[in-house]
Amino acid sequence: MTNFKSLLENYKVIFFDAYGVIKTYNGLIPGIKKTFQWLNEQQKAYYIITNDASRSPELLATAYREFGLDIITPDKIISSGMLAKEFLDLKVKKGLVAYLGTENSAHYIEHPGLQTLPLTEMNEDNINDITALVLLDDEGFEWMDGLNKAVNLLRRRTIPAIIANPDGAYPLSKRDVRIAIGGLAWMIEKITGKKFIRFGKPDSQIFMFAWEYIIKLNPGITKKDILVVGDTLHTDILGGNKFGLDTVLVLTGNLLPEDYETRIFSSGIAPTYVCDSAVIEKDLIN
Amino acid sequence: MTNFKSLLENYKVIFFDAYGVIKTYNGLIPGIKKTFQWLNEQQKAYYIITNDASRSPELLATAYREFGLDIITPDKIISSGMLAKEFLDLKVKKGLVAYLGTENSAHYIEHPGLQTLPLTEMNEDNINDITALVLLDDEGFEWMDGLNKAVNLLRRRTIPAIIANPDGAYPLSKRDVRIAIGGLAWMIEKITGKKFIRFGKPDSQIFMFAWEYIIKLNPGITKKDILVVGDTLHTDILGGNKFGLDTVLVLTGNLLPEDYETRIFSSGIAPTYVCDSAVIEKDLIN
Amino acid sequence: MTNFKSLLENYKVIFFDAYGVIKTYNGLIPGIKKTFQWLNEQQKAYYIITNDASRSPELLATAYREFGLDIITPDKIISSGMLAKEFLDLKVKKGLVAYLGTENSAHYIEHPGLQTLPLTEMNEDNINDITALVLLDDEGFEWMDGLNKAVNLLRRRTIPAIIANPDGAYPLSKRDVRIAIGGLAWMIEKITGKKFIRFGKPDSQIFMFAWEYIIKLNPGITKKDILVVGDTLHTDILGGNKFGLDTVLVLTGNLLPEDYETRIFSSGIAPTYVCDSAVIEKDLIN
Amino acid sequence: MTNFKSLLENYKVIFFDAYGVIKTYNGLIPGIKKTFQWLNEQQKAYYIITNDASRSPELLATAYREFGLDIITPDKIISSGMLAKEFLDLKVKKGLVAYLGTENSAHYIEHPGLQTLPLTEMNEDNINDITALVLLDDEGFEWMDGLNKAVNLLRRRTIPAIIANPDGAYPLSKRDVRIAIGGLAWMIEKITGKKFIRFGKPDSQIFMFAWEYIIKLNPGITKKDILVVGDTLHTDILGGNKFGLDTVLVLTGNLLPEDYETRIFSSGIAPTYVCDSAVIEKDLIN
Repeated sequence: MTNFKSLLENYKVIFFDAYGVIKTYNGLIPGIKKTFQWLNEQQKAYYIITNDASRSPELLATAYREFGLDIITPDKIISSGMLAKEFLDLKVKKGLVAYLGTENSAHYIEHPGLQTLPLTEMNEDNINDITALVLLDDEGFEWMDGLNKAVNLLRRRTIPAIIANPDGAYPLSKRDVRIAIGGLAWMIEKITGKKFIRFGKPDSQIFMFAWEYIIKLNPGITKKDILVVGDTLHTDILGGNKFGLDTVLVLTGNLLPEDYETRIFSSGIAPTYVCDSAVIEKDLIN
Repeated sequence: MTNFKSLLENYKVIFFDAYGVIKTYNGLIPGIKKTFQWLNEQQKAYYIITNDASRSPELLATAYREFGLDIITPDKIISSGMLAKEFLDLKVKKGLVAYLGTENSAHYIEHPGLQTLPLTEMNEDNINDITALVLLDDEGFEWMDGLNKAVNLLRRRTIPAIIANPDGAYPLSKRDVRIAIGGLAWMIEKITGKKFIRFGKPDSQIFMFAWEYIIKLNPGITKKDILVVGDTLHTDILGGNKFGLDTVLVLTGNLLPEDYETRIFSSGIAPTYVCDSAVIEKDLIN
Repeated sequence: MTNFKSLLENYKVIFFDAYGVIKTYNGLIPGIKKTFQWLNEQQKAYYIITNDASRSPELLATAYREFGLDIITPDKIISSGMLAKEFLDLKVKKGLVAYLGTENSAHYIEHPGLQTLPLTEMNEDNINDITALVLLDDEGFEWMDGLNKAVNLLRRRTIPAIIANPDGAYPLSKRDVRIAIGGLAWMIEKITGKKFIRFGKPDSQIFMFAWEYIIKLNPGITKKDILVVGDTLHTDILGGNKFGLDTVLVLTGNLLPEDYETRIFSSGIAPTYVCDSAVIEKDLIN
Repeated sequence: MTNFKSLLENYKVIFFDAYGVIKTYNGLIPGIKKTFQWLNEQQKAYYIITNDASRSPELLATAYREFGLDIITPDKIISSGMLAKEFLDLKVKKGLVAYLGTENSAHYIEHPGLQTLPLTEMNEDNINDITALVLLDDEGFEWMDGLNKAVNLLRRRTIPAIIANPDGAYPLSKRDVRIAIGGLAWMIEKITGKKFIRFGKPDSQIFMFAWEYIIKLNPGITKKDILVVGDTLHTDILGGNKFGLDTVLVLTGNLLPEDYETRIFSSGIAPTYVCDSAVIEKDLIN
C-alpha cells in the first residue's frame, strides 16, 4: 500500500478513470475535490480517461460541476466516444450512421457529411443507405427491437460496427449491476460472427489518443511521467500497463481491500502500485 | 445425394427436427404430410425431437393439427422443455422457480411442490426464495428488465440456471432472424461468469431422453435402427452423430444446395447422408 | 458439511471420481480402502467414472491392485475411452484411425475392421485413408510433430475428431500441473475452427453410459438412488447435477476447505452435499 | 478491383505486411522488387509492419537482401518484437526475463538491466527471480517441456506475460500450416486463466508505434496519407481500419480471388480497396 499523495510527487500527468475513482452511484468519492485542487496548485496536468460514451465531454463536465467539481472542465475529459468520432471522420465520411443509445450519446457521431439514424428507425427503405453502426449506450432504445435490428443489419450489410464502451456491465448500487452496451455487443458478435471495433480501455488506442493530445499541451513529457489511476484491473490497469505507463489501483470501486490481492493473483494483472483511494487528505472536509 | 424414401427403408425409428425439416416460417414444407402417412403405413416409429420449449407438446401438436398434420400427436413430440422439467423434479423439488418466457412456456416448470414466478416480478421480498432460474422463450417479457434481473439474480444467488433452448437465433423470414433465448443466455453467462445448464441439441442428453422413451415402446431397437433427420449441422447432425446415430442432412432449412458442402468441410461436421428434403413423393399434392 | 458415511446410507449406487477422491499424485487417499470394504459389506454398488482414457479398465484396475485396492475390479470402472470406443463402433466402423497418446491408450480404438495409426506416422501416402482422429493422452508422442499433424489432418479431411479426456490440465504435485490432452485439443479447435466430439465429464453422456450399464445389473434402480462423489465442480458436480443425480463434493483434491465456498459461489455450481473426504473411518489404519 | 500502381499515387507512406504481400513460403512474390524501386524513385516512404518477432530487423533485412531485395533496410522494418522491447524497458526494467523462442528471437529482450533465460532452463532455484515471460517464436524449444513450464510459471508468479506474435498459425506450403507461438499462447491463457499482453496486428498499438516513428521522419504526414497493404482480413485490414488508415487487400497470400468476397462478407471486415497483388508492373522480369 502506497500513500497516494507521495506517489503523485513522482509524476507530471495523471490519467484518472471516472467511475470508482472520482465518483460512484452515490455521487463523488468524499474528499476527491481536494485532490484536484492540489494537482492544480502543483501545476500537474490531469485528465479523465473514460469509457463513458453516453454523453459529450461538455455534458460529462456539467455533471461534475453539479457535484461541485467545476475543476474538471470539458478539455480535461477524453472519452472513448471521441475515438469513435475520429474513426467515422477518417473511415466512414458519408452516409447514414445508425446508432443505439440516447440522443445525448449521438453527439459523437454528428459530423459534416454524416446523417444519424436511431437504429430502431431502420426499415427496408433506409437499410441500404446505412454506412456504419455505432453502439453508444444501453439506454434510449427498446432492447428487443434494437438488438434484433442490430443483428439483422450486420447480417445483411458489410459495414463497420463500432462499440464505444466495451464494458460488459456497470454498478447500479452497492449490490446490483446493469448490463452495459458492451455486454449487449458480445451477444450481437456471437450471433452474427462479426466483430465490433472496440474503442476504450483496456484497448490501448484511447491511451494513445490521450498521449497525442497531451504531448501538444505538455511538451517534453515522456511515458515515464504519466500515472494511470483506476479501480478495475481488466480495463484501467491492463490498458495502462500495456501502453507502458505506470498504474495505481485504488480500492474505492470494483475491488475491495479484502480481495484485491486474490484478484491480482488470479488475473495476473498487476498494477505498479496500490492505494486505498485517490483522496489525498482524508481528514479534511470535501 | 441420397433418395430419402429409399433411405427410410433401412431404419425402424426416425427422429425428425421440426423447424427447417417439417415446417418453416412459411408453414409446412410442401409434401411433408405424405412422408408421415407413409411412415404410419409402414409401421415405422417417428418422433419430433425439438429445442422448442416455448410451448407444451400438446400445444405444439395443436399447431401441427391446424396445418392439417394431425398425424403428429403430443406423444410423438420430445422437447428440450421436458428435460428441464425432469431436472426440476430430480434436483430442485421445491421453492420458487423464476422464468423468462411466455405463460405457455411455463408449462414445463409447473410441478407439485414448485411455484413459478415470471422473473420480471422478482423483487427484494422474493429473491431469496427463488430456487432455480429457467430460460424458456425470448417472448413474453420486456428484455431490458428481464435480462438485468437475470444477471443480478445469478450474481446474488447460487441456484441452478437452466436454458431449455440453446439455439442462438432462429429464422423469421427468408432474410431475417430473431435472437433466441439461447443467444440471450450467452450474454448472461459472459457477464456473470456462471454457466447455464443447457438442455437440447446438440447436447446428447435429449437423444438419451428420447432413446429411453422409445425403447420402452419399441423393444429390441438398437441405435443402428434410428435415423436423425435435421437441417442444421451444429445441432441435429452434431448431436445425433455424438450419440452414435446415423444422420441425414436435408436442404429445406438452414443450408442451401449450393453451400452445404462448404459448410460441412469448414465445420468438420459430416452427416451420414444428405437428401434434398424429407419429402418422399414430390409429385403428389400435399 | 455432511458426514460421508451417514450420507451413503441413503443411496444404493455410488459413482466415484478417481483422481482427487480415491487417489492423488501421492498414491491412495489414506483410509479410502475402508470405504470400499464397507460398501461391499453393505451390498451397495460402486463404480469409478473417470475421464482417464490413457489406459484400459484392466490396466487401471491393475494400478489400484498394486496400491492394495484389489476391490476395484475392471468391471467397476467406466472410462470416457469406452464412449470413444462405442462411437467408433457405431459411426466409423472401418479404415485407419489416427491417434495421439501412448500405445496403452490405443486400447480404446482397437476394433475389428479398424486399423490404428499413431498420428506421428501420418504421411502423404496414408492421410487419405484416415477415417477418424482420436486424442487419448498427452504422453506417447512428440508434441510439436503430433500437434502440427493434428491441425493439418483436420484442415484437409472432414472426419470425426474425438477427445476422450476433456480435462485441460491435471495435478502433477502439490504445486504444479501438467497440460492434459483436453488442453491441447482446445488449441487445435481454435486454430482449425473444427470442434472435437468430447466424451467425459462434465458432458452427461458418460453418466448415461454408466446408467445404462448399471440398470442391467441393478434392476429397479432410479436416478434418486445414485450419488456422485467428486472433487471438481466443473466436471463431476456439474455433470452429475445435469444428469439429475445427487452430488457430493469432497475436499481431498482440487478444492481446499478454505476456498470451496467461494468457488461454489463464483461458478454457480452447487453440489447437493459437501464432505471433507470420501473416507468413512479416519481413525482406522488403511 | 483497383490498379495497385494508380492507388499508390494517392498516398505518401505505404505500410506493407511481409508474408503474403512481399514473400511467401516460395520466396519473393514475382515482380515485387519493381514496386519498391518505383516507390524509391517517387520518394514515397515505405515500411514493413510485421508480426514476425523471430528475428531482429537486421536479420529480417538480411533475409530480404539474400533474395535480392536490398532496398528493404533494417530502418524500414517495424516488428511487433520492438513493442515487446519497449514494454520491457518501460515496465519491467530489471530481473530475469524468461522466453520461448530461438536465440535469434531473444534479441528483442536483451536490454541493460535485464538478464534473459530460455524458459526450458527455469528451475526451482531461479523461478522466483523471473520478472516477465515473453513468447517470441514457436521454434527453438521442446514444446512439451516449454509449454508446461509456461503454465506453471504463470500459475505461481504474477508477472507480465507478453506475446509478440499473436498469429495462431502460418502457412508452411500451399497446403499445410504450422502452429505459431500465438496459437500456443491461446492454450496457455485458457489453462491458466491469465491473459497475455499481445503486441502485433490487429492490435492497433503497432500502427501507433509506426506512426510515432514516421512522423518524425516525414513531418506533416496525416493518417489520410498512409495506405496499409495486407493479405489478411483479421490482422492487417482490421488493425489498419481501426487505426483510421486506408487499407488494401491483396490476393497473393491468405485469400484467393474466388473467395475474398465471401470472406469479407462473413467477417464483416472490409478493406478500402482490393488489388490482385502489390506488384505494379507484371510484364517486367523481377
